[in-house]
Amino acid sequence: MNRIKLNEVVMRDGLQSEATLLSTADKLRLLNTLSALGFAKIEVSSFVSPKAIPQLADAEAVFQAMDRHPATRYTALIPNIKGAQRAAACCVDEFNLVMSVSASHNQANLRMSQADSFDQLSEITGLARQQQIALNVSLSCAFGCPYEGDIPLTTVTSWVERWLAQGVSAITLCDTTGMAYPSQVDLFISHLTQHYPELALTLHFHNTRGLGLANLLEAYRLGMRSFDTSLGGLGGCPFAPGATGNVCTEDVVHALQLEGADCEISLPALLQANTLLKTLVGHPLVSQVGLAGSRLHKPDSTV
Amino acid sequence: MNRIKLNEVVMRDGLQSEATLLSTADKLRLLNTLSALGFAKIEVSSFVSPKAIPQLADAEAVFQAMDRHPATRYTALIPNIKGAQRAAACCVDEFNLVMSVSASHNQANLRMSQADSFDQLSEITGLARQQQIALNVSLSCAFGCPYEGDIPLTTVTSWVERWLAQGVSAITLCDTTGMAYPSQVDLFISHLTQHYPELALTLHFHNTRGLGLANLLEAYRLGMRSFDTSLGGLGGCPFAPGATGNVCTEDVVHALQLEGADCEISLPALLQANTLLKTLVGHPLVSQVGLAGSRLHKPDSTV
Repeated sequence: MNRIKLNEVVMRDGLQSEATLLSTADKLRLLNTLSALGFAKIEVSSFVSPKAIPQLADAEAVFQAMDRHPATRYTALIPNIKGAQRAAACCVDEFNLVMSVSASHNQANLRMSQADSFDQLSEITGLARQQQIALNVSLSCAFGCPYEGDIPLTTVTSWVERWLAQGVSAITLCDTTGMAYPSQVDLFISHLTQHYPELALTLHFHNTRGLGLANLLEAYRLGMRSFDTSLGGLGGCPFAPGATGNVCTEDVVHALQLEGADCEISLPALLQANTLLKTLVGHPLVSQVGLAGSRLHKPDSTV
Repeated sequence: MNRIKLNEVVMRDGLQSEATLLSTADKLRLLNTLSALGFAKIEVSSFVSPKAIPQLADAEAVFQAMDRHPATRYTALIPNIKGAQRAAACCVDEFNLVMSVSASHNQANLRMSQADSFDQLSEITGLARQQQIALNVSLSCAFGCPYEGDIPLTTVTSWVERWLAQGVSAITLCDTTGMAYPSQVDLFISHLTQHYPELALTLHFHNTRGLGLANLLEAYRLGMRSFDTSLGGLGGCPFAPGATGNVCTEDVVHALQLEGADCEISLPALLQANTLLKTLVGHPLVSQVGLAGSRLHKPDSTV
């Protein structure tokens, strides 16, 4: 009950933001390395049009060739019924459906209204149930929108309620552009856990304004145990060149273990995966623990 | 009572880590910009030997030419009695005395034993009192040492007690290499505030392992109001190339204001100072808010 459940999103959310396309073989190398670490979930890819996101055009090939860790649920982003059919054929364990609680952001990012998103994604839930595939809904911009500013909590809860009414209780609140802050996280989570006890909530934080770990630790303090994280912090924020994206898996695991959380991912193994990722993407990563080593790491230099 | 008191340390702790030497004129431009923002304290320079830290060789010139904001206390690092005499001649408002709670770190960094440091710094307190100059003692490695690992809380409190016995009640606990974590911050601060009610505690956090803001907000939650911060996060950690140093003033002010703290530093003015600093040092800064803008900043791009 108390165990931390991390959803490692670097393969999808991370790699789709990269300028360099990784080969399928390189993706499998990274993915199989991550699979060996025992994540609760790994978001492997997205079944979108290959034209829309060429970085993830090999979703089928990756799903078919990858190793499957028995304790890991392999999830994928599913934009529409066609994607759901492709994913089902690859034995995807979970469909992750994404829409935004901000009308403007939904329009800008998904190019349709929220009502159309809801209808299109609802259509997928039937197929998922028929094939006994798990469902998760990710609500973007839950803690604020770069176009609209603050999204009222009542708007966020109205979408939570609509999805609960659809029978989806696994919901991820996404801080898509890094606008969350701890007292807001407290307010939102306290309200949701009090009013919707059936909700299985996951938190997805970005470190865009330096508060990623503070928000995640605040959520942990409030009893949350399920988080999206990305190796090396991959998954940039398109609104802020140079700013970091997702909270780094390495930094989250390091922090949670120091706080005494039941988080069994091996930090040394994660740091090896960090080195592999850095080689594959060909640029430095923002993970602070990747740069500095763990807290009790002995420095090489005696300066 | 509840007002946030920031000590802006970029002029000393920040610039002494820079490869590029700033001219005195450029330092004054930056310092006067910062002075206009109403910090509680600004650490202006260090009265060490110019040979030891050439970046700060112009301490006298800076103190003599700078503007003084009436609400700001101008402090300087004072390593020994000779430095204290130089500083007193420049009307420095406060002497900041530094030693480490780790014997190995004290030896490596200050090249003397802790006993010698204590004696040498104690000698300065007489001069300070005679001239009515305020005193602060910064204890390095309070939350861990890269050589020795964890420093027992009893060791930290023994140094606190020795300085209190010397009549110094303003003490800064420094997380010199970014080893602190929130539950440890909680333990240390709770213990110190309970046992030493006369202590005027300041916290100095580094973001080396991504926990800088989480630690600072934890301290804030525990009633702490006095923090060292550095514009642009300048002040690297020599043990971890590429890792960040001090917590960024911009990110701290942004976070504290969101948490409803009484922190009156203007964030837009800080972001202008960030731009100036970036130009002066000639490299990007790690401040996330410097990169992304404040939470309700409208993006230029509509991507």
